[in-house]
Amino acid sequence: MTHRIAVLAGDGIGTEVMPEGVRALEAAAGRFGIDLDLTAFGFASCDYYLEHGQMLPDDWHETLAAFDAIFYGAIGWPDKVPDHISLWGSLLKFRREFDQYVNLRPCRLLPGIQSPLAGRAPGDIDFYVVRENTEGEYSSVGGTMFEGTEREVVIQETVMTRTGVDRVLKYAFDLAATRPRKKLTSATKSNGIAITMPWWDTRVAAMAEHYPEVEVDKFHIDILTANFVLHPDWFDVVVASNLFGDILSDLGPACTGTIGVAPSANINPEGRFPSLFEPVHGSAPDIAGRGIANPIGQIWSGAMMLEHLGHAEAGAAILAAIEAVLAEGDPSLLTPDLGGRGTTTGLGQAIAERI
Amino acid sequence: MTHRIAVLAGDGIGTEVMPEGVRALEAAAGRFGIDLDLTAFGFASCDYYLEHGQMLPDDWHETLAAFDAIFYGAIGWPDKVPDHISLWGSLLKFRREFDQYVNLRPCRLLPGIQSPLAGRAPGDIDFYVVRENTEGEYSSVGGTMFEGTEREVVIQETVMTRTGVDRVLKYAFDLAATRPRKKLTSATKSNGIAITMPWWDTRVAAMAEHYPEVEVDKFHIDILTANFVLHPDWFDVVVASNLFGDILSDLGPACTGTIGVAPSANINPEGRFPSLFEPVHGSAPDIAGRGIANPIGQIWSGAMMLEHLGHAEAGAAILAAIEAVLAEGDPSLLTPDLGGRGTTTGLGQAIAERI
Ligand SMILES: CC(C)[C@H](C(=O)O)[C@@H](O)C(=O)O
Ligand SMILES: CC(C)[C@H](C(=O)O)[C@@H](O)C(=O)O
Repeated sequence: MTHRIAVLAGDGIGTEVMPEGVRALEAAAGRFGIDLDLTAFGFASCDYYLEHGQMLPDDWHETLAAFDAIFYGAIGWPDKVPDHISLWGSLLKFRREFDQYVNLRPCRLLPGIQSPLAGRAPGDIDFYVVRENTEGEYSSVGGTMFEGTEREVVIQETVMTRTGVDRVLKYAFDLAATRPRKKLTSATKSNGIAITMPWWDTRVAAMAEHYPEVEVDKFHIDILTANFVLHPDWFDVVVASNLFGDILSDLGPACTGTIGVAPSANINPEGRFPSLFEPVHGSAPDIAGRGIANPIGQIWSGAMMLEHLGHAEAGAAILAAIEAVLAEGDPSLLTPDLGGRGTTTGLGQAIAERI
Repeated sequence: MTHRIAVLAGDGIGTEVMPEGVRALEAAAGRFGIDLDLTAFGFASCDYYLEHGQMLPDDWHETLAAFDAIFYGAIGWPDKVPDHISLWGSLLKFRREFDQYVNLRPCRLLPGIQSPLAGRAPGDIDFYVVRENTEGEYSSVGGTMFEGTEREVVIQETVMTRTGVDRVLKYAFDLAATRPRKKLTSATKSNGIAITMPWWDTRVAAMAEHYPEVEVDKFHIDILTANFVLHPDWFDVVVASNLFGDILSDLGPACTGTIGVAPSANINPEGRFPSLFEPVHGSAPDIAGRGIANPIGQIWSGAMMLEHLGHAEAGAAILAAIEAVLAEGDPSLLTPDLGGRGTTTGLGQAIAERI
C-alpha cells in the first residue's frame, strides 16, 4: 500500500527544514519498508500569493484531497503578505475545509533540552493537548457598528455546536483511555464566560459517563495556565476549545523548552480528508536563509504523520533518533537555538543516520 | 481627610485573612497619620445568600457608593452556592456597576518566595498586567438554539467598544510612561480571532501615537503565555482584554511563585465609584477554618489600596514589611504554603510589627 503525501514547505525556514523532514521520512520508510509517494507543491506560500494574488490555486481542494496526508512546513512572511491573509488563506482553510477538527500536540521534556522550569527532568512532563480545531472562538461571524466613530462597537461571536464539541471530546477521551494514567483535564472558564463554557462543562460531563475508567478533572483557563507552570506533572490529556487549546499548546511546549522543536497534527479522524502535520514554530523570517533553523519540529511532525498512517513503530524510531542526537549533545551538530554551532542540514543528516 | 473603607470579607479563608489585612492597614495608618474609617459588612458571601436568597441587599449600590474604597476578601463556596451565582452576584457585578474598568495586578519576584522558573532572582521579574475589566469576552449576550438536541448550537458574543478599549489602553500607557523602562506590551490574537482583535490592534496603534516616549510591542496570546515563562524579564506593562488579562494575571504570578500572595486592584480611575482591592487567591474551602491561610495577598491588596488613596509611602511601607518577613524566612512565622509552620495571625502580626 502506497501512502501519497503532499509536501507544502511554505515560507521562510519552512523551505529549509522541509528537506530534513523528508530525509527522516525516507530513512524511516526505508528501514520499515513503508511505501511513501511524496509530491511537492509551491502553493500555500507568500511568494505564490505575490505571483497569483491568492494563496492557493482554484483547484486546491480536489488536488490535495487526493492525498493521504499533508506534510506542511511554515507559512507567513508579514513583510510580503499580512498574516491574516496568508493564514486564513491556507492553514486555517485546510483545518476547516478538510474538517481537521482535532489539533494534537505533545508536550514532553526531552533529554538535552533545557526546560525553563526549575528541577524538572525528562519523564516528569509528558502530556497531550487536544484542541478543537474548526469552530468556537475562531469564527468569522460578527462585525462593527458606528465604524470609525466614538460610539464604535465591535462584536465577534463564539459559536460552539454539539457535533463539533462532542466529537473532539470523544477523541480526547479515547486517547486518555489508551494511556497508562487514563486522565483527562478539561479547560473551561464557566465562571466568567457564562454562556458557552458552562455548556462545554455539561458536554464533558455527559461524555465522561461513557468512560468510567477515565479520571476527569477541570480547571478554569486562568489557573490552568498557572498549573502548567507549577504542576506540569498533573497532566495526561488536556482537552480545550479552539482558543484555549491554541494558548495551552504553545504554553505546554514552552514549559518543556521545546517550543522551537514541537510538532503538531491537524487530524480528520475519520480519514474523509487528509490530515496535516506541521511544526509548531513559524516561518521565522528573521533567521531565514542562513541554514541554521532547527529541523527537529519538522522531523517530529513526520513521526506523528507515520504514526497516523498506521506505522507507530516507524514514528517511534524517528522520535528515538531525535532523542539520541539530543542526548549526545554534540555542539557541532546542534543548531544555535540548542546552544550548538551546527546547521539545519547537519542536524537533519545526523538524525536520519540514527534512524 | 477621612477615608471611608467598606470591608467585605466574603467566604472561607476570606474571613481569616481579612483581620490581618485590617491589622496591617491600621498599623500603616498609625505610622503615617492616615485617617481610616473601616465598616464591615456580612453581605457578598455564600452564607448571606443562603439566608437571603441573594448575594447582596437591595440597596447595595447606594450603601457601597458612599465609600472611598472596598476592601474585599474572597468569595465562593461551590458546595453552598454555584460559582456563577456567587461571582456574578457580587464581584463581577461590582466591577461592572461601579465601572471598575481597570484590573491591575503586579507580577514581582519576592525575596524568600521560590519561583518555579529556573535561575530567576528578585529584581528579574517586575511587571504589571492591566486588564480590561468590564466588557469584551465576559458578555452576557448570546444563547442556545436547538437546545438539548443533536443540532444544538451555543453562541456567545464578545463585545468591545471604542470607549471601553481606549480608556483601559490610556490607563496602561499612562502607567508605562511613569515607569523607568516605559515599555508596553499588547496581548492580541489578530491572526486567529479575526474581527475583534485586529481592531484592538488598531486602537493600540492609535493610542501609541500620543505616547512617543513609550516603546510598544505586541504578541499573540499563545506565544505571549510562552514568553511569560521563557522571558518574563521582557515585560514592564502588559495590557490585555478581559479574558486575556484574566489568563495573564494568573500566569504572571504563577511564574513568580506568588499566586497565593498576589494582590489585585479593580479600579475606577475617575473616582466616580469606589475601587475594590482583593487578593488574587480564592476562598479555598479546603483549608478554611484551620487558621493557616497565608494573609499576604490580603495585606498586599491593602497596600495597593493605600497607594490608590494617595498614600504611596504607606503602601510602600507595607510592601517593605512583607518583603522583610519573607527575607527573614523564619519557619515559625511562615504559613505552610511557604514551607513554614506558622499561622495566619502569627504572620499577620509579624508583618504589622515591621510596619
Ligand atoms: C472568579 C472569576 C470570575 C474571576 C474572573 O474571571 O474575572 C477571577 O478569575 C479573577 O480573575 O478575578
Ligand atoms: C497562526 C495561527 C492562526 C495559528 C492558530 O491560532 O491556530 C497558530 O497559532 C497555531 O496554533 O497553529
